Amino acid sequence: MELNTAIDRQSYVPLYVQVKDSLRDLILGGRAPGEQLPGEPELCRRYDVSRTVIRQALRDLELEGLILREKGRGTFVAEPKLREGLFQELTGFYGDMAGKGRPPVSRVLTQEIVPAPRQLAATLRLRPGAAVVHIDRLRFVADEPIVLVSTYLPAARCPGLEAVDFSHRSLYEYLESAYGLVIARGRRTLEAVPAGEYEAGLLGVRKGAPLILLDSVSYLADGSPIEYYRALHRGDRSRFEVELLRGIIASDE
Amino acid sequence: MELNTAIDRQSYVPLYVQVKDSLRDLILGGRAPGEQLPGEPELCRRYDVSRTVIRQALRDLELEGLILREKGRGTFVAEPKLREGLFQELTGFYGDMAGKGRPPVSRVLTQEIVPAPRQLAATLRLRPGAAVVHIDRLRFVADEPIVLVSTYLPAARCPGLEAVDFSHRSLYEYLESAYGLVIARGRRTLEAVPAGEYEAGLLGVRKGAPLILLDSVSYLADGSPIEYYRALHRGDRSRFEVELLRGIIASDE
Repeated sequence: MELNTAIDRQSYVPLYVQVKDSLRDLILGGRAPGEQLPGEPELCRRYDVSRTVIRQALRDLELEGLILREKGRGTFVAEPKLREGLFQELTGFYGDMAGKGRPPVSRVLTQEIVPAPRQLAATLRLRPGAAVVHIDRLRFVADEPIVLVSTYLPAARCPGLEAVDFSHRSLYEYLESAYGLVIARGRRTLEAVPAGEYEAGLLGVRKGAPLILLDSVSYLADGSPIEYYRALHRGDRSRFEVELLRGIIASDE
Repeated sequence: MELNTAIDRQSYVPLYVQVKDSLRDLILGGRAPGEQLPGEPELCRRYDVSRTVIRQALRDLELEGLILREKGRGTFVAEPKLREGLFQELTGFYGDMAGKGRPPVSRVLTQEIVPAPRQLAATLRLRPGAAVVHIDRLRFVADEPIVLVSTYLPAARCPGLEAVDFSHRSLYEYLESAYGLVIARGRRTLEAVPAGEYEAGLLGVRKGAPLILLDSVSYLADGSPIEYYRALHRGDRSRFEVELLRGIIASDE
């Protein structure tokens, strides 16, 4: 394993950050998941830094989800984060993952018809108190919980949706095949938020761990809002990709 | 202040999460920054829940950056997160913020010519060790540190860049005016990561606080990569927006 061990001792950047950046480059540069990293004494020798520095770098990389440290066994390259294309995302999480050969499984936590609170009603352009279908799902990829999502749709547009089993199927596919509802555009906002106790328990992360909050409204081609959702993705397992083109910007301004 | 106090005591969703969601809806529904929320006893009364439940909800909302709690004074609606359009983002952080009347100020932490490590060289399609301009900036909006960004550009394409003062100017504007380099497209990935001690100190957040890591490569119209950057945005102060169109997906697949 070749390391870029050029540590700059005159730099204002702390040594452990330089070591961390070097190891991150190495891992992202194409190490295989499960590959073992050199032990701490070996890393100390190669970087010519103290054990404390190495440990601080490894701890940060572990928190970032890049490595796994197993007591008594050593340090290993973690599975890469799940890549989700923000452009592809209109196919939905199910379609996106299934397209990669990893169809997600959902544990449906709640599925019911409720009156829309004022803010949600405004988002979906309904009168306050109008019936909405509310579905909460904890979604797994390869047996690992990845995202907790609360979805709301106008009940009048999708009668019976509250009774459909979504543990192994795509909501978007069902909306299209059963109701002819095709999502044409969406507005998403992304934020980083700390996991509360409740979300942490469901997602299997520590309290306070970084999550990506995806807040989203989806629209039909005629411009009417058809879905609102709020999804919490595990930060250590998710990354979102987006491709930007200047032409789009020009037409968007 | 009208609250949606419909708490469902039969729900599997913990009471404090319901209270939190209700308060979040209220705040995002258009409360003015600085507006005072009712005190804890009043919230207990309105939601008919215990003080513990109210406190847990308020603590989470504070961690999310939605409210500020000031000892002895009360609870207030926080300044909204800075909205950054991912489409507008090709104008750069400077242009994006300046367009909103809040031109950022940068503390330039380092600005130097260094040999490109292997991974960076591959990204910028340079030979390993080729000279790159490396600029680290801590960027402030309204005197508040918001983002820590490390930028790398091929030195051969922008001679003298290492000596330009970027504390009050846009890098992208300078690339265009001085070298005729116009960024035509970019690839960005977004992740949520915990702040290390070093980043936490610079950004003024607690260690482990969620940050948005924006990893980015920018290209000229001829397809050649011209810039790599890695930016850490404060999670409590930043949100990213993106508009998705099905047409773009189709052309992208």
